[in-house]
Amino acid sequence: MSDTRTAPRYDVIAIGNAIVDVMAPCEDALIAELGLHRGGMTLIDTDGARHLYEAMGPAKEISGGSAANTLAGLAALGAKCAFIGQVADDQLGEVFSHDIRSAGIDFGTAARAGDPPTARCLIFVTPDGERTMNTFLGASQFLPAAALDEAAIADAAVLYLEGYLWDPEEPRSAMRHAIAVARAAERKVAFTASESFVIDRHGDDFRAMIKDGLIDILFVNESELATLTGEADFDAGLAALAPDVPVLVATRSAKGAVALMGGQRGEVAAQPVAKVVDTTGAGDLFAAGFLAGHVRGESLDDCLTMGAIAAAEVISHFGARPEADLQALMAEKLG
Amino acid sequence: MSDTRTAPRYDVIAIGNAIVDVMAPCEDALIAELGLHRGGMTLIDTDGARHLYEAMGPAKEISGGSAANTLAGLAALGAKCAFIGQVADDQLGEVFSHDIRSAGIDFGTAARAGDPPTARCLIFVTPDGERTMNTFLGASQFLPAAALDEAAIADAAVLYLEGYLWDPEEPRSAMRHAIAVARAAERKVAFTASESFVIDRHGDDFRAMIKDGLIDILFVNESELATLTGEADFDAGLAALAPDVPVLVATRSAKGAVALMGGQRGEVAAQPVAKVVDTTGAGDLFAAGFLAGHVRGESLDDCLTMGAIAAAEVISHFGARPEADLQALMAEKLG
Repeated sequence: MSDTRTAPRYDVIAIGNAIVDVMAPCEDALIAELGLHRGGMTLIDTDGARHLYEAMGPAKEISGGSAANTLAGLAALGAKCAFIGQVADDQLGEVFSHDIRSAGIDFGTAARAGDPPTARCLIFVTPDGERTMNTFLGASQFLPAAALDEAAIADAAVLYLEGYLWDPEEPRSAMRHAIAVARAAERKVAFTASESFVIDRHGDDFRAMIKDGLIDILFVNESELATLTGEADFDAGLAALAPDVPVLVATRSAKGAVALMGGQRGEVAAQPVAKVVDTTGAGDLFAAGFLAGHVRGESLDDCLTMGAIAAAEVISHFGARPEADLQALMAEKLG
Repeated sequence: MSDTRTAPRYDVIAIGNAIVDVMAPCEDALIAELGLHRGGMTLIDTDGARHLYEAMGPAKEISGGSAANTLAGLAALGAKCAFIGQVADDQLGEVFSHDIRSAGIDFGTAARAGDPPTARCLIFVTPDGERTMNTFLGASQFLPAAALDEAAIADAAVLYLEGYLWDPEEPRSAMRHAIAVARAAERKVAFTASESFVIDRHGDDFRAMIKDGLIDILFVNESELATLTGEADFDAGLAALAPDVPVLVATRSAKGAVALMGGQRGEVAAQPVAKVVDTTGAGDLFAAGFLAGHVRGESLDDCLTMGAIAAAEVISHFGARPEADLQALMAEKLG
């Protein structure tokens, strides 16, 4: 990033769901029996959460949230990061807050008193490593615009937003305001589309933001690209977005990823993984690796490779945040 | 177990701490810096818990508690189990309750309203896999005798008690009452000494119970055996206890374990483990494997082997409850 001002306080500030993942392995039959949307993310209410939790085996609680996972990867790669998201004043809120702060990420959003409780995502992981997510948004959907630390947003090279948070009204309005703050400070805005279903509901919003030049860096996967552009063909989808998106990154699971930036096209294969244990966080960590390279001014190919390495690490274990030393992994593979 | 009555409702009913483990990897230097008792279990208060949690890296929450871990292993091996322990009416209490019930264990102790919160154990895991435990007992120490399901205790082949719970007064008194209920019903009482420091504080109690013939099955490790008997020599320690303990099981970490029963002596080597990831639960799962064999009437050697297999599984991953299919592991190794 060429910027003649003094270096910003943060490389990346993100706004996202403040969620604790409740993860359990399960057999394929249970996914069918419970009628879950295999591989997808479904919003659930209090009753749905109770019902699914009862059906779930012994679980582990691990902090999650898409943008928060991305920050955890960025921080592990040495980027200076801050997070904005809403937890409740309860034990899972303490868990989320502890985990993000202990990863070296500034997190100052005040916990919200009373109901609803902190968000959780019930994740069923099938033997193939695929995760099926069921999210109870809880306090997360009540992030008010007033909770934004505008000075911090204006002092971050990149504002990173997660599409999942576009559904609830308060955070959507907060994110729109954050975009205005970032743009007024001449910062970059990065956006992850999160899920095809989110685009089904808010595609017109997203397309308008893109057309208006509000998104500098966009992360999509194959199906999100198709939903967003209406183009079934991958390359046609890329071509449709490229004129309006300065940095466009499209992930394709096992097929790797493609990025377009300033007329350049880069492509990376997926990194080999001995055993895919849990795909939760794959896209989040791809974004982390890519952005970590991008804010350091690495080449497009290196940014893609960093994304692929970070994604490969996170799918090789349970949980959506990095466990291995990502900087050492990058040094080993990129030299 | 030869018993001419109808088969009991439970193979094992246990009374123990109802704890959620908060686990994080850490470097050796942090253990020294924080002045922790490496490899041991230390009780901490609210301030201590806050201080240590702040110093801890990103963590995972996984249900624990020594006796509860043992039951999770027993249930995984097909034993019918029930648990008695005190959680608070809070989110970590829900986590503990969910995890134990979803492991197939009956758990009916009502959650306790108000402060203190559910117990947690802050576990620092060093690169050698050793765990350093710091326990905030919270609600767990307020298990009242009134919470005992006496009918269930009378209808379980074995009552299993954890020494850790001997420190706080209410559960100690509840456990004494439970022993009386079990013995009146002519059931066996199993006891795990848990920790040398517990024996430092309550050794006279334990020795008196053993002398009075109240303990049918006793689990100790090497240092607990020495503390309990005052014999520095392992075999002298065994010889001192053997006359008063019908089934005596002494674990020796990497050196395996020895058991004495009815004049027989059995010995087992530790099972090979590719990589020791986290030793949390090793003793608990050894007890699980041994007891699972014992309640099915397996030979002393097979009981020991089952203990060694279950312990090896649990130290090969993070967390103190089994993750692999223990029945399949036993079938593979015992034929």
